[in-house]
Amino acid sequence: MGVVLPFEEKPSDPEASLNDLVALVAGGMDRVNAMILSRTGSEVAMIPEVANHLIASGGKRLRPILTLATAQLCGYAEGGRAAADGGRAADSGRDGDVKLAASVEFMHTATLLHDDVVDESDMRRGRVAARIKWGNQASVLVGDFLLGQAFKMMVEVGSLRALDILSSAAAVIAEGEVMQLGAAKNTETTEDEYLAVIRAKTAELFAAACEVGPVLAGRPKSEAAACRSYGMNLGIAFQLVDDALDYGGTSADLGKNVGDDFREGKITLPIVLSFRRGTAEEREFWRRTLERGEIDETRDLDAAIGIMRRHRALEDTIERARHYGAIARDALALFPDAPMKRALLQAVDFCIARAH
Amino acid sequence: MGVVLPFEEKPSDPEASLNDLVALVAGGMDRVNAMILSRTGSEVAMIPEVANHLIASGGKRLRPILTLATAQLCGYAEGGRAAADGGRAADSGRDGDVKLAASVEFMHTATLLHDDVVDESDMRRGRVAARIKWGNQASVLVGDFLLGQAFKMMVEVGSLRALDILSSAAAVIAEGEVMQLGAAKNTETTEDEYLAVIRAKTAELFAAACEVGPVLAGRPKSEAAACRSYGMNLGIAFQLVDDALDYGGTSADLGKNVGDDFREGKITLPIVLSFRRGTAEEREFWRRTLERGEIDETRDLDAAIGIMRRHRALEDTIERARHYGAIARDALALFPDAPMKRALLQAVDFCIARAH
Repeated sequence: MGVVLPFEEKPSDPEASLNDLVALVAGGMDRVNAMILSRTGSEVAMIPEVANHLIASGGKRLRPILTLATAQLCGYAEGGRAAADGGRAADSGRDGDVKLAASVEFMHTATLLHDDVVDESDMRRGRVAARIKWGNQASVLVGDFLLGQAFKMMVEVGSLRALDILSSAAAVIAEGEVMQLGAAKNTETTEDEYLAVIRAKTAELFAAACEVGPVLAGRPKSEAAACRSYGMNLGIAFQLVDDALDYGGTSADLGKNVGDDFREGKITLPIVLSFRRGTAEEREFWRRTLERGEIDETRDLDAAIGIMRRHRALEDTIERARHYGAIARDALALFPDAPMKRALLQAVDFCIARAH
Repeated sequence: MGVVLPFEEKPSDPEASLNDLVALVAGGMDRVNAMILSRTGSEVAMIPEVANHLIASGGKRLRPILTLATAQLCGYAEGGRAAADGGRAADSGRDGDVKLAASVEFMHTATLLHDDVVDESDMRRGRVAARIKWGNQASVLVGDFLLGQAFKMMVEVGSLRALDILSSAAAVIAEGEVMQLGAAKNTETTEDEYLAVIRAKTAELFAAACEVGPVLAGRPKSEAAACRSYGMNLGIAFQLVDDALDYGGTSADLGKNVGDDFREGKITLPIVLSFRRGTAEEREFWRRTLERGEIDETRDLDAAIGIMRRHRALEDTIERARHYGAIARDALALFPDAPMKRALLQAVDFCIARAH
């Protein structure tokens, strides 16, 4: 990862990694990846081209991993699939977790395609954005196609409760995006308002991805609520760390350029904190650069980071992330100790330790 | 309507109107409209603004009407709702048709919002397009929100079969739109290729809207297939007549301007027929105007209509529509005579008679 921010606090766990979690769901993820590939297929050649440009460009696939992991944590498919163990014969009809995980990734991909159009982004995951290569039109429509395919897969699983969770999430995510559009360039956004946006636009899908696991396993409401809370708070922490990294990571780490949020005039928590804590002169700086978009490419990003450092805005953004990470950890406390539980706790540490 | 095209054939039924159909579903449509209003509600003020700009601008709401009508044709809710008759007390839990109808309208509205972004349209239903007033971003995101709300409503109805039909339709519609994008500006598109596009992008939603009626009523597959076939062929006829009207209607009738398709370089059936039947010089005209987009605003639209007249392309487009209308009518033959059946047959005549 490389040290990118001069934080004084120690990370929760500098050794934290996703390795254990990834290993525990490796078999399921192979099936998710195969499912994703087959469901982006279409006789209309542009659809798999656009979809796979983004899907194949990597990303950690954290959201589908979480669906498989919470399903496994709650005992789903231990009967049907443990026996199959790599073979595919024995587990037909027991692939609900795989289909819901693929649905979640499709929902996420559709959101990214539409986001790039909305934000007029040029880059995504270190590659040129689909909208640059194929046009805004293709990005909008292939996003719609993936959403349709996501719902088709969910319907195949046949759980009305899971359908309810994921379709509600789709509406909430879009609502969050519109909310963000309304708050765009408003430097007086409060921390609470900002949190409402990222809860909806980022954390809701993490929450839904985690909630459908226990639902699929037929577990009681308390476990579904616990997994949902884990996902929600992990998602908030994840987004806050992303926000900090945008002012301190390297292009290769992020898959986007440092300062993208700044150049796009996005109000994120480091800005919210810096603006509130700032001098009148600094506030005028934020208004000029973010509200009026008058940015001097060579100087203003450095100046912005300088102001953030002065007010410890990046450190405190990570500190806030750590708070939500702690809630995520506690949410899982009612589950007995198990390798999957430990892996999920480690994932929280990983999300926060990325910043160091 | 006013005479807009100098067709020699008599319309199937010059007296055809939607009045009977509209009257038969009037009670249900009041509830659909109330449902639409309540489900576009959001604390994010921009969402109801954008959604209602389009929804309140009218349109005939043909698709939700078809859902209510086919449900009623198949006997849905006759027990629960006939008794209520205006009151709302007796029919809670029996509003599946209303929710599915509202879902269908939301899917349609979402498509229109996204279409306007894709086509860069300035007008929609005689009003300035939402994307002009609120920006492409809001159109993309509010479309996504409406899709999410549509799925939520469907899930509430609880019919997995209806969910399957409508989620499949969502994927097919998007696929059709991408197909159209790929075929855009290609004057050598065949009639079959064009039909594949409008089947997917227009007729599929008519088909799904009609198929969920009998499904909701628990009727056998043969009736669901009959209603689906009715909707599919009605949808094709509807789109073909629209295509012809774009070269011969008046702005007030269409809610868009005559020649919009031409100016946007859209390949529709009148173009496909004119290109194939045309001289080398005429083909060069189509290539210049549609493929290369070199359009002289004051002369080329008249020239295009002149070529179409010479080859009877508009008349034959309507003739093709009449063919699909006949299939739609026959699809309903297995249902016994009833006021609703007669109203649905009349709706076919109306869709075609619009052209006269």
